[in-house]
Amino acid sequence: MTRAATGVCPNPAASVMGVKRPSSALLTDHYELTMVASALRSGVAHRRAVFEVFARRLPPNRAYGVVAGIDRVLDAVSRFRFDEDTIRYLLDVGIVQDGEMVEWLRAYAFRGDITGYAEGELFFPYSPVLTVTGTFAECVVLETVMLSVLNHDCAVASAAARMADAAGGRLLIEGGSRRTDPESAVAAARAGFVGGFDTTSNLEAGRRHGIPTGGTTAHAFVLAHGSEEAAFEAQRATLGVGSTYLVDTFDVMEGIRRAVDVVGSDIGAIRIDSGQLEEDSRAARNLLDSLGATDCRIVVSSDLDEFKVAQLEAADAPIDAYLVGTSLVTGSGHPTAQLVYKLVSIADSDAPDAELRAVGKLSPGKRTLGGRKDVHRTVDADGRFTGEILSVLPVELQDDTMNPQVPLVRDGEIVADLTDPTEARQRCNERRSRLRDADRTPWPTHSPAIPTIWEGVEEPLSTPVPAAGGAQ
Amino acid sequence: MTRAATGVCPNPAASVMGVKRPSSALLTDHYELTMVASALRSGVAHRRAVFEVFARRLPPNRAYGVVAGIDRVLDAVSRFRFDEDTIRYLLDVGIVQDGEMVEWLRAYAFRGDITGYAEGELFFPYSPVLTVTGTFAECVVLETVMLSVLNHDCAVASAAARMADAAGGRLLIEGGSRRTDPESAVAAARAGFVGGFDTTSNLEAGRRHGIPTGGTTAHAFVLAHGSEEAAFEAQRATLGVGSTYLVDTFDVMEGIRRAVDVVGSDIGAIRIDSGQLEEDSRAARNLLDSLGATDCRIVVSSDLDEFKVAQLEAADAPIDAYLVGTSLVTGSGHPTAQLVYKLVSIADSDAPDAELRAVGKLSPGKRTLGGRKDVHRTVDADGRFTGEILSVLPVELQDDTMNPQVPLVRDGEIVADLTDPTEARQRCNERRSRLRDADRTPWPTHSPAIPTIWEGVEEPLSTPVPAAGGAQ
Repeated sequence: MTRAATGVCPNPAASVMGVKRPSSALLTDHYELTMVASALRSGVAHRRAVFEVFARRLPPNRAYGVVAGIDRVLDAVSRFRFDEDTIRYLLDVGIVQDGEMVEWLRAYAFRGDITGYAEGELFFPYSPVLTVTGTFAECVVLETVMLSVLNHDCAVASAAARMADAAGGRLLIEGGSRRTDPESAVAAARAGFVGGFDTTSNLEAGRRHGIPTGGTTAHAFVLAHGSEEAAFEAQRATLGVGSTYLVDTFDVMEGIRRAVDVVGSDIGAIRIDSGQLEEDSRAARNLLDSLGATDCRIVVSSDLDEFKVAQLEAADAPIDAYLVGTSLVTGSGHPTAQLVYKLVSIADSDAPDAELRAVGKLSPGKRTLGGRKDVHRTVDADGRFTGEILSVLPVELQDDTMNPQVPLVRDGEIVADLTDPTEARQRCNERRSRLRDADRTPWPTHSPAIPTIWEGVEEPLSTPVPAAGGAQ
Repeated sequence: MTRAATGVCPNPAASVMGVKRPSSALLTDHYELTMVASALRSGVAHRRAVFEVFARRLPPNRAYGVVAGIDRVLDAVSRFRFDEDTIRYLLDVGIVQDGEMVEWLRAYAFRGDITGYAEGELFFPYSPVLTVTGTFAECVVLETVMLSVLNHDCAVASAAARMADAAGGRLLIEGGSRRTDPESAVAAARAGFVGGFDTTSNLEAGRRHGIPTGGTTAHAFVLAHGSEEAAFEAQRATLGVGSTYLVDTFDVMEGIRRAVDVVGSDIGAIRIDSGQLEEDSRAARNLLDSLGATDCRIVVSSDLDEFKVAQLEAADAPIDAYLVGTSLVTGSGHPTAQLVYKLVSIADSDAPDAELRAVGKLSPGKRTLGGRKDVHRTVDADGRFTGEILSVLPVELQDDTMNPQVPLVRDGEIVADLTDPTEARQRCNERRSRLRDADRTPWPTHSPAIPTIWEGVEEPLSTPVPAAGGAQ
């Protein structure tokens, strides 16, 4: 799979860093390859198949999920190639045997179609976030790498959007890099931005994705200078009066006095990273105002999440910006979006015109609805979303519906340009504006915000789906 | 910083994948660089400093933490270089200005010392997992990348060890790649192995770190074949009778009958991925035995964690192997190890012989104990650990103590070879054998298992530490 003729480099970092784009083919589970090997022998490998990525449920008390990571998925799929070194490793350890399987690996490039939700789009239970069509074997090997990306990025973007809902338009600063694996940190910064954060501390996210970065000093900086006065003076000389001064190394009120004393009353901002943020922010505001620093902004941090942000907002605490770390990058209690990748249709033979039949499993608690789903999301007269309708029949869009599915890959060529996180962020913001206000809080009235409705079938059914052909 | 003369490649994947080793310098927070810029101007940048990595507390009801990721930290430090592309980016977006700062970045390579806990070692509150010595500026920039790696890997290894404690020696299979970011998945597989898991599904972890991999088929494979008989037949033909057959796509007992029918009574194993695992495993065992498949092992999966594993063990369920995914890679409720990186000592001037003074902050709830800590862990007559003694004074080891700190880097050269995860896994196993049995369950009697004791000072104090020189 390659990018379409526009020649967009799917991962700017690869060239910026002078690094050859590595294969993503082993970022996968052992069983993908044993399944391909077995399916090649049984002949099932070459049958046309449809897989869907969806979540059976949202985390408890969540109104919606936010899609992020689609661009990274397409990038990973485009790098999913088995080079000779990789094949040699697989042969050496006996995961594959020489012969048809090795030829298949050597020739592998995804040549099918992918349709899905764009970055920033909302999803609900069973929304087909991705629909992947191709041969059984070419699709089945993509399960792990696709889910890895999406489960991470959607978890972070979903948490970010809840925090943005809670923060009521105040500045949101992402600073969780140190609380998640290094490459996850870059992805989390991007997903957080898509979900509604304004800036990140992560420099690689700045370089790779163009996310605005920010930051000034840590407690170590104050301690190293031996006194707040010396530290603030060093910061002022280099970063200027408009930067953010960390005032809580010893005592917040003393710190504020020293900062205004050293920097002047046009000091840009102070940061409080500990203590009782509501009380401290009020006292800080009063003190700053009494010192003439009426335009000085107050940034707070320290184990914030959407619940604490909402409480501070409800208390009308005089806070101008929230810096959120751990809870954002770990999905605020739900570090994985629980997305799964399931076979929903397969052809009865590998003849090109073989009909697809719907399939699903009956495992207790894990039943799946067979058949490829089209989506129309219904909208009321005010433009608010009212339902997520999934249909295994072809859908003709009505005036009062929208279809969140967009073409992403056609015959192995990427046909969507999703590299701009700003566009995704705007989409997320627009979509969230079409939910009820009561569902845009940490304690939503409806979970999920809109119902998922199956059209043509009654429930999350298992195989067979009568409308779509024979049983398994 | 370079690897010592042994020439060990710190990241075998880099060469295997034909990829030039990328810089890790931007996997960091914006404020690291603004601090350096300010400290260069104030002169503090060149003062000798000591930073420590530690956790103020363990997660609730945990008896111990497990160190993992040290090798990845050393690798990241060795790749922490600002190449011209990176510098150009930083100049372009205005994060740094030309002049002394750019010269400093260009010349940057860590030339200090690092001491720390080896992979697989246990840690407790305030254990100095890493002690980093160098100039203030050269150390301060490493905060984020070090913590990113350690907070992730220690969280996973700690969860893994609890699961290994619970599983009582039964096989533990890691399968969580799809529930965490792709590169995190590779790291999680390694950390899980260090903590006590036996195999992983992650192929890149197999290639990069030599972790044994495993896997056979998914529900999609059964569904694609249209019947369990056809699927089992395809699997048997390719993977053999000794492989693991997934029997719960439709009905577990029917699936087992079909599997034994197709594969024969010397079928290697069956996997059950849903339902009531205790009841189902008992029924499965009885059925398998009645069909003559008395050696067939039973593998279970489906949202397992250490609590569920312990319950199944307590119920004496006839289970041979546990496959754990989500809960392992997300640290079983604690996806980050809460490690912090704090300045504990700094010289009063940049003269080579300037004395180090202890420093710490007073922020409410975040007080830190200044001074560089030596550790001796006390041991009773049975070889069991009894206390983690931290001293800011030089410590002479007694017969009844051990020091978990080992030299890792000297003058910028890596002096420890920690690339072998098997050695780390053995270390973890040995160390855990020296805890009380009652603390090796998901519900330990003591949390933490042993107390942290400060020697020479009374408590987790803040600056000044009287024994180590003047106050800030």
